This record gives sequence, structure tokens and C-alpha cells, in this order.
Amino acid sequence: MEKRELLYEGKAKKLYATDDPDILWVEYMNQATAGNGAKKEQIAGKGQLNNTITSMVFKLLARKGIASHFVKRLSENDQLVRKMTMFPLEIVMRNVAAGSFAKRYGIKEGTELASPVLEFFYKSDPLNDPFINNDDILALKLASWEELEIISAKAREINKALRSIFADVDVRLVDFKVEMGTTSDGMILLADEITPDTCRLWDTRNAGTANEESDGVSIEHLDKDIFRRDLGSIIPAYEEILDRLTELDESQSGSDVTEN
Amino acid sequence: MEKRELLYEGKAKKLYATDDPDILWVEYMNQATAGNGAKKEQIAGKGQLNNTITSMVFKLLARKGIASHFVKRLSENDQLVRKMTMFPLEIVMRNVAAGSFAKRYGIKEGTELASPVLEFFYKSDPLNDPFINNDDILALKLASWEELEIISAKAREINKALRSIFADVDVRLVDFKVEMGTTSDGMILLADEITPDTCRLWDTRNAGTANEESDGVSIEHLDKDIFRRDLGSIIPAYEEILDRLTELDESQSGSDVTEN
Ligand SMILES: Nc1ncnc2c1ncn2[C@@H]1O[C@H](COP(=O)(O)OP(=O)(O)O)[C@@H](O)[C@H]1O
Ligand SMILES: Nc1ncnc2c1ncn2[C@@H]1O[C@H](COP(=O)(O)OP(=O)(O)O)[C@@H](O)[C@H]1O
Ligand SMILES: [Mg+2]
Ligand SMILES: [Mg+2]
Repeated sequence: MEKRELLYEGKAKKLYATDDPDILWVEYMNQATAGNGAKKEQIAGKGQLNNTITSMVFKLLARKGIASHFVKRLSENDQLVRKMTMFPLEIVMRNVAAGSFAKRYGIKEGTELASPVLEFFYKSDPLNDPFINNDDILALKLASWEELEIISAKAREINKALRSIFADVDVRLVDFKVEMGTTSDGMILLADEITPDTCRLWDTRNAGTANEESDGVSIEHLDKDIFRRDLGSIIPAYEEILDRLTELDESQSGSDVTEN
Repeated sequence: MEKRELLYEGKAKKLYATDDPDILWVEYMNQATAGNGAKKEQIAGKGQLNNTITSMVFKLLARKGIASHFVKRLSENDQLVRKMTMFPLEIVMRNVAAGSFAKRYGIKEGTELASPVLEFFYKSDPLNDPFINNDDILALKLASWEELEIISAKAREINKALRSIFADVDVRLVDFKVEMGTTSDGMILLADEITPDTCRLWDTRNAGTANEESDGVSIEHLDKDIFRRDLGSIIPAYEEILDRLTELDESQSGSDVTEN
């Protein structure tokens, strides 16, 4: 596979064309941003960690029957994915009140929600990624009614699978953001990345430790909130996530003869 | 019917108990507010106009088969309504991009929407009435799934009926907000008010006139945007709406023998 011209440079990744029109080359950068780019920093080792973590997560999801754009990890910072026409939507699933949700509705961070919550945000830097509902998405023609049904069902299914994966490694999946797109043959697939940049992951293994006390709740964040909230270095937390997922993957591969 | 103790004083109306536990006495005040109370003024004649307009609108809606809490207009500023347990929701229907919608999504005010848009806002003064989606409403237990289905269907039906009523008097129904509640016998009904305070109404009769030019669009507002945007006095505009609806009502009553 040959790396060709740069197609897009985002806040965390660079996308390159390849000699296969259906395949993109993704380079994970060391850049960390928060608040739609208002806070920005270079963090050595981050790109490599996220490239490896998202490759691992897509592999673990595939084992649960959830397909994605992921093709292959190439090197420390690079991977190949299927080229998609992306929906300009941040697709957010929440299991526990946190972040903008807790603030918007005046709910204490850490409150378990009665049922998982799906929210959409319109991916638009100039508009600051506003919250958007289904009717708005239809009126703005960001997706059709049928596409929204499929996207929503997939988001809920991904949440079930991810919760189970993270529960297996003693991590509480508070919420996460995914993106989806349509392949050249018209199928809707999970794309982009699933990393501690795009999930809220709270440790349940080390009950004694905590990097934040808020509202009387002790939380050991293993995610980008460490960066957003200035709670220290993200690197050990991201490494911890990778170590635990690697261990889970190895334990599964051992018993999974169809994989070798 | 006897007026008893004050139950609630809102931004536009006072609610009183009556000797009938199922009936409330509503007094329409002269107060106008905008931006969740940030801007506030007393406007002589406003209470009386809105009391008369909303009584007329509920009557016109009833003729189209849409029931509401409205019982009877009592006097200049007072009316009787059925007492409801209110959903803490502002139920917004939009036909044309305007206001917060136009701003949120960067769409030019006046753009006709591909299909009518339903939006919910969580009625909470301390939280500043945040935008909320269906999943959030369920998680916060503001309404059940069945209630949301009924509320949504009723909102769309009200929009159809209101559009037709206002089109008959040469007014473009851009958007509006309603509230609903549950009666003591468990039925969901349209409640609160429908007035130029709660609708965006653009004149289509006097093509030459306009009280606002924005983004190259000339608009003759016949609604509270005159107050929100400091475009002059609201009174002549509210009187114009009342006159036109009165004329429509009279033209309908004449041909409607079942009503006398
Ligand atoms: N499989 C794919 N095909 C095409 N575009 C993709 C695919 N997966 C992710 N993308 C897009 O690539 C970009 C990823 O780069 P990123 O740095 O995360 O950008 P951003 O700052 O826009 O979030 C995003 O715009 C994302 O929507
Ligand atoms: N039929 C009804 N039964 C009980 N409450 C009602 C009914 N209709 C409207 N209300 C409530 O009465 C209040 C009306 O007063 P208003 O001045 O508009 O208040 P607010 O400032 O809260 O919007 C609102 O809180 C509204 O939800
Ligand atoms: Mg991104
Ligand atoms: Mg009100």
C-alpha cells in the first residue's frame, strides 16, 4: 500500500490517499485539543498510544459482531481504514451523567442514567459543534430518516459492546463519541476512532486512587478529562487502558481457534 | 365561579385556584419579558390583548378538532382553564428558520425548512431552558416514551391547524411554542397560551411594509420579536393579529349553524 497526498489535517489525525481509492492512510498525531481547539498541546507518545488503542478496540468490537472502517495497523502512528463519506455528526452515547450533559441539566456528575442516552452534535467548527435533534438533522439534510434509524441502532449496539469490553477490564464506560459514514457501496459503518480522547473511562479497579474529587465523588479518570481539567499527564492513563485491553485481547485470542 | 388563592405568578400570567378543584383562574398581566426575564417591561394593554387572542386561537383550534385546556374568557384580563399537571417542556414547532434555530445552525432567518421541525426545551429558569432531546427527556423522567409520542403527534397536528388558521389571515407562521399537561383523568391536552408572545408571525398581506431588514430579508413582525429586538411598540401588531382573527372567526361562525 502506497501513501499518497494529504487529504485532510484534523485536530488529532492526518488523512492521506493511497493507491487504492477505497482505502485511506491515517496518521495519529501527538496533538491534544479541548474546547473545540481552544486548548492545544503536543504530548509525546499520544499519537502512538491512540493508534494502538483504537486498533485494539475495533478488533475487540469486530469479535462482538460490530464492523468498522478499520483495516490494519501499519506502524506506531499509522493505520489503514476504509474510505467513507462521513456524516457531519458527533454521535454521543451516555450511561452516566458527566461533562456537558451534567452541566446542561444540572445533574451531579457520576449519576447513573435510567437508560442509555443518545445525543447528536452537528460537527461544525465555526458553529462550535451544536447539540442537534433528529428533526433538525432531517431539516438540515445531514442524514435521511432511514440513515438516522440505522445510525441510532448502531450507536446503541456499540454502547452495549463497548460497555461489556470495558467492564471486563474494570473500567466504567461513562460516555463516548463515535462518527459514522457510508462506504462506496452504501453501507453505514462505524469510523473515526475510539480512544481515551473520545470516551470517558473511570477506573473501578483501584478503589483507593482518584485524580479528581468533584461534588463529593472520587473519580480516577483514564481519559482526556485529565487533559481538559488539568489533572496531570494523560500518558500513564492511556498506557493503563492499552495494557488492560491488550491483556483482554490475549485472553480471548487464546481460546479463539478461528482467529489463528 | 369563585376566585381563590394565588397559586403561581409567572412571567406573563397569574394562576389562581377556584372553588372547582379542576378549574384554574388565569390572569393575563401586562408584563413582557425576553431572554428568560433578562429584559422586562410593563406594556399597557398587553394582558388584555393576549387574553383575548389566546381565547380566540383556542376556539379556532377547537373548530379544527384540537382540544385544549381553555374553558371560558371571563373579562378583559381573565379566563378559566382546566387545571393540568404540566410537563416541564417548551414544545417548539418550526416551519421557517428564525431565532435561536437560525443562529445555532448558521441558517439565514427566513429560510423555509424542508419539513416542520419539533424541538423540546427543558422549562427550567435556573438552567436557562436548555435544548433537550427525546432520550434526555426519558433519562430525566420528564415524560414517558408513550407521553412523548402523544405530545409529538399533537404538536405536529397543532402546527398544521395553526398554519392554516394564520394563512387564512395572511400571516406566515414561522414557529411557535406550546406547553402541554395531563388532566386529572389522565388525558394529555394543549395548555398555557398561544399568542404573539409565543409565536413568530410574519405579515404577508402588506408586502410594502417591514419593521425589520435582516440578512437582506424584509420582515413585518407581528409578534414579540418587536419587543425582543427593539423594533417599536408591540401593541399595534398584537391588535392587528386580534382584528384579523376576529374577522376570520366571524366569517366562520356565520356559516356554522351548529355553533349557535
Ligand atoms: N473512514 C473514514 N473516511 C473518511 N473520513 C474519516 C474516516 N474516519 C474518520 N474520518 C474523518 O477524518 C477526520 C479525523 O481527523 P480528526 O483529527 O479527528 O479531525 P477533526 O478535528 O475534524 O475531528 C474527521 O473529520 C473524521 O470525520
Ligand atoms: N392548564 C394549566 N394548568 C396548570 N398550569 C398551567 C396551565 N396552563 C399553563 N400553566 C402553567 O402556568 C404558568 C403560566 O404562567 P407564565 O407567566 O407563562 O409562567 P412562566 O414564566 O413559568 O412561563 C406556566 O408555568 C405554565 O406552565
Ligand atoms: Mg476528531
Ligand atoms: Mg410562560
